Amino acid sequence: MRRLALNQKTTNRWSVQEAVDGCVRAGLEWIGLWREPVHEAGLATSAQLVADAGLKVSSLCRGGFITALPGPERDAALADNRRAIDEAAALGTDCLVMVVGGLPDGSRNLPGARARVADGIADLVPHAQQAGVRLALEPMHPIYCADRGVLSTLDEALDMASPFPADAVGVVVDTFHVWWDPRVEAAIARAGERIASFQVCDWITPLPPDALLARGMMGDGHIDFQALRRHVEAAGYDGPIEVEIFNADVWAADPDEVVALMRKRYEEHVLD
Amino acid sequence: MRRLALNQKTTNRWSVQEAVDGCVRAGLEWIGLWREPVHEAGLATSAQLVADAGLKVSSLCRGGFITALPGPERDAALADNRRAIDEAAALGTDCLVMVVGGLPDGSRNLPGARARVADGIADLVPHAQQAGVRLALEPMHPIYCADRGVLSTLDEALDMASPFPADAVGVVVDTFHVWWDPRVEAAIARAGERIASFQVCDWITPLPPDALLARGMMGDGHIDFQALRRHVEAAGYDGPIEVEIFNADVWAADPDEVVALMRKRYEEHVLD
Repeated sequence: MRRLALNQKTTNRWSVQEAVDGCVRAGLEWIGLWREPVHEAGLATSAQLVADAGLKVSSLCRGGFITALPGPERDAALADNRRAIDEAAALGTDCLVMVVGGLPDGSRNLPGARARVADGIADLVPHAQQAGVRLALEPMHPIYCADRGVLSTLDEALDMASPFPADAVGVVVDTFHVWWDPRVEAAIARAGERIASFQVCDWITPLPPDALLARGMMGDGHIDFQALRRHVEAAGYDGPIEVEIFNADVWAADPDEVVALMRKRYEEHVLD
Repeated sequence: MRRLALNQKTTNRWSVQEAVDGCVRAGLEWIGLWREPVHEAGLATSAQLVADAGLKVSSLCRGGFITALPGPERDAALADNRRAIDEAAALGTDCLVMVVGGLPDGSRNLPGARARVADGIADLVPHAQQAGVRLALEPMHPIYCADRGVLSTLDEALDMASPFPADAVGVVVDTFHVWWDPRVEAAIARAGERIASFQVCDWITPLPPDALLARGMMGDGHIDFQALRRHVEAAGYDGPIEVEIFNADVWAADPDEVVALMRKRYEEHVLD
């Protein structure tokens, strides 16, 4: 249970204060934060709340969205990513989750968008290294390729990370995004010390109508979490295991009950 | 325009007779048939209707769904696939599209399901060879991995096809299923003479609520059809290009207008 982390998105209605209190009530040691609620609470206040509660921050979500064509929009996105790096450092986590972004409006040039992600990462690495923060590239399920993340496989994320030191650019292994990949075991082994975050949630069917809110609680769907956790551990990762669930029903439920259920399902489906 | 094929599913409410007549009215030379409407019309009658109209059958959809555990359900599925092979031969097409099936109810063993697909293909190949029909393995978009098709990439389909002669086991390149794959260009080149069918439809956002009916008319979404068509042609494929669209709005529209729009969009977005 010491590795279990509540990603704040799972209890979407909770503020930083409420999520911190909820973690303490549930006996958790780790919390994954999101920038929007951190901004609402204030960065320094958020860092203080977490520290006072004795929690550790497993990751900050999220940087990224760097697929825009060169110009003011891209410049603004890169500047915002530099701020996100600084925020991660201020919150005491070295893991900034990067959701790289989809195709620009009207564009069908997927290789072009992917090349701009690679350029953007290169642009951000010096600032990240200076701040002691790792850019954690998150391959997204191909369902999101067009509109959220053009990085579609763990291998692709590793290819993109490979020009940089492992402590500057890592990858996120999120079960929802990678479970289907016939190469997932080999890619996780290849990832090794690049694994910056391990996130869990389930793939449920029928897929909920809103694709963005399609993730399920562990055990409600089709993913073999124990197998994926073993692969990740065999690759050398022993950090926090974050539960991040985008789901309207989960968000509508009582957050304390969601956290209790998360603990139970983690024990039953993720641990041995 | 001589390569354009109407897959019957695009005009879902049309019977075989109506679809054949619609193709003739639109000046098409190819039609892709589905087993259910063929059964309704009768196999011999369907073959006669197509022949009398001077059309060629680009493919029969579909065989597959062979992921069940050993037992009566699996035996029945394999027997049904043998009938599908015979039906393809009777309709004068050498291309039987194989949608391999998802995880059995309650199972989370994805590698196991994939292994049973490989076993099932091996079981079916002799019958297919005898009938002169090629099993065309269709990698499905990972959105369908749990419930429709555990073959998720073109590379995986090619790995599964590789023990068998290319004229016995081929692959389907369907733009909707493969467009996101960072390895798609390399995998299409690798496929070469294994390419048994090239199908086109678009990936649209926001994704419609029913994931099964999420496909769009070419030009309505994010796929670069010309690039994929060029890759397929560079790999040596010069057969029919089938338009297969599962979409409630397309199905609700007047089928003749759908065919007219399909012709127009094919010219604008698929051809050079």
